[in-house]
Amino acid sequence: MAETIYKASTTAPVNIAVVKYWGKRDPKLNLPTNSSLSVTLSQADLRTLTTATCSASYQGQEDSLILNGEPSDIKGARTQACLRELRAKRAALEAENPSLPKLSTLPLRIVSENNFPTAAGLASSAAGFAALVRAIADLYELPSSPTELSLIARQGSGSACRSLFGGYVAWRAGERDDGLDSKAVEVAPASHWPSMRALILVVSAAKKGVSSTSGMQQTVATSDLFKGRVANVVPAHMAAMEAAIKDRDFAKFAEVTMKDSNSFHACCADTYPPIYYMNDVSRAAVRAVQAINEAAGKTVAAYTFDAGPNAVIYYLEEDSAPVVGTFYNLLQSTDGWKDEAKSYSSTATQLDETTSTLLKEGVSRIIMTGVGEGPIKTDQHLV
Amino acid sequence: MAETIYKASTTAPVNIAVVKYWGKRDPKLNLPTNSSLSVTLSQADLRTLTTATCSASYQGQEDSLILNGEPSDIKGARTQACLRELRAKRAALEAENPSLPKLSTLPLRIVSENNFPTAAGLASSAAGFAALVRAIADLYELPSSPTELSLIARQGSGSACRSLFGGYVAWRAGERDDGLDSKAVEVAPASHWPSMRALILVVSAAKKGVSSTSGMQQTVATSDLFKGRVANVVPAHMAAMEAAIKDRDFAKFAEVTMKDSNSFHACCADTYPPIYYMNDVSRAAVRAVQAINEAAGKTVAAYTFDAGPNAVIYYLEEDSAPVVGTFYNLLQSTDGWKDEAKSYSSTATQLDETTSTLLKEGVSRIIMTGVGEGPIKTDQHLV
Repeated sequence: MAETIYKASTTAPVNIAVVKYWGKRDPKLNLPTNSSLSVTLSQADLRTLTTATCSASYQGQEDSLILNGEPSDIKGARTQACLRELRAKRAALEAENPSLPKLSTLPLRIVSENNFPTAAGLASSAAGFAALVRAIADLYELPSSPTELSLIARQGSGSACRSLFGGYVAWRAGERDDGLDSKAVEVAPASHWPSMRALILVVSAAKKGVSSTSGMQQTVATSDLFKGRVANVVPAHMAAMEAAIKDRDFAKFAEVTMKDSNSFHACCADTYPPIYYMNDVSRAAVRAVQAINEAAGKTVAAYTFDAGPNAVIYYLEEDSAPVVGTFYNLLQSTDGWKDEAKSYSSTATQLDETTSTLLKEGVSRIIMTGVGEGPIKTDQHLV
Repeated sequence: MAETIYKASTTAPVNIAVVKYWGKRDPKLNLPTNSSLSVTLSQADLRTLTTATCSASYQGQEDSLILNGEPSDIKGARTQACLRELRAKRAALEAENPSLPKLSTLPLRIVSENNFPTAAGLASSAAGFAALVRAIADLYELPSSPTELSLIARQGSGSACRSLFGGYVAWRAGERDDGLDSKAVEVAPASHWPSMRALILVVSAAKKGVSSTSGMQQTVATSDLFKGRVANVVPAHMAAMEAAIKDRDFAKFAEVTMKDSNSFHACCADTYPPIYYMNDVSRAAVRAVQAINEAAGKTVAAYTFDAGPNAVIYYLEEDSAPVVGTFYNLLQSTDGWKDEAKSYSSTATQLDETTSTLLKEGVSRIIMTGVGEGPIKTDQHLV
């Protein structure tokens, strides 16, 4: 007889922090040394689609995960922690209501796909774990809120907890040893400040950098300056950033975004041995943003860099001309531009030759996107 | 009738800090935010030669300075402060002893020459002001000690106060508002640890960086992490470095040297807007030093970077083979190698291709030198 196959599918977004997560106070539970804050990016441009299924017909099989068409290891402690907690929540529902099918006892088959190349070096683990947790929570029909699920996703990948919400999202570091207060909360929905845009300059790293997982712990262990970042810099940046978002104050948003990126990479450079994620192309992007703001006579663009050389440049839709125009004028032969970019090329800021040459030779791909929604349930099943 | 021309000539050395001076608590008096420590480099390779003269036959003329064959501005506040203090000391001697010629009343003619191209981007102002002060002090036959003269040279260029001594030199930041306790002292003479060598990789900067004078004050004003450097990092580095020098402990000397350079450049990157002195070539030199130390199984080389992309690599003479050998093997077509370098090429550490390519394309000149003596009186007059 044919057994039912239960399934649920969801998409989840990438998020790019404007106050950075760097350093764990508890590596096992992914408890961070400091709070962080990010902007969720539109899933029209960057998203992970995940289908979670379970069925009695899978009996005798192990849980499995297919990622971008390739069988992927699901046995890792981080993934296992997520599955264990989700099954426990389902089992609790089944215990309360015996009429529910015992899905918690069935093997899981999970299939996941990104709509962007992992090669882009964009943190895909955040979207991946957010989609995994959200899809299984839907499959199990858990009543859990996004914040409750963020406690689970956090154990898969720290920054994944922020991808359970759209818009502007804070991850509160929390203080408890069990991590039950280390969770994501919505600072403001995308609709509060919908004109936020992000232009991503994908820079090919000449040399693979230190992984963020090991890099951040080297910083915690060896950087003397990092202590000041955790104790003073980040708390001030979190407060200023939340106020800037509530007030839709782009100049303040941009200043804190750039200062926090500077502070994060300064702590990487102060690590022993030093960690360098930004290269000369990244620094050229910094100079370009400075030149654009100077030419505009006000702050219309803000750079931020994660654990790699890619530049993420935040700007408001109404300032597309000076920001997009300058980079399109310089990099129009690069892949990834949307048609609208062409209309801004006439409003380009002139950049010095060193900066222009570095960007032309070093930027391999463009991604144009903006603030977006959180995970979205879909009937587009991959199984 | 022919008037007597009084003259005195001296040479003065360059110094490269291993605990960096960055930030002034009093820009007018050049009082630093923190103490610093440097190694004086051999004048056989890098030195300024200065002749100071005065004569009644110059009556009616203004003080003048010829630097590397070009008339140079002597009216600057910093130079004037040095001349004023030196003349005051001479005038005091003349008041005590009326038989002394009244040199303090005569116009000065000063001629100065470096034996290295200013283009090399090596802090020539330190050697320049040290030579200027030492030469005039000799001309005036002042009984002042090098530490007393360091109070004067400091007002010309902060790091110049350290070039009045050979060997290993500390500049005590001091606490007094009048700066009378902000002076240089000898930590150890060159003879205490004579095997210290320095290999300088001159890297052509693609873009002129921010001057250290303005850069350091931007850091003081805007870097939140800098507060931690001044309050905690530098005091710890000063104590550890002085102990390492007294014990001739190269591993410790190297660790503190590299950590302090990392900390200094981290604070530059945390400045708003950020200041970047190191480039991808500089970072390749960092990786090369790491590779050399790993291959040696112990610390045989230490990198440090001032306010520019040049790498200064300290090592001990007995470790010339792995250190010089590696760089000579890679950069033998570059100008500046001494003959001895050839004999080490067979002991080179293999560097990864990215690192090798960056160094080959980015290093424009080599300077091989080592720890050396302080200012030396000479009869080789430029007038």
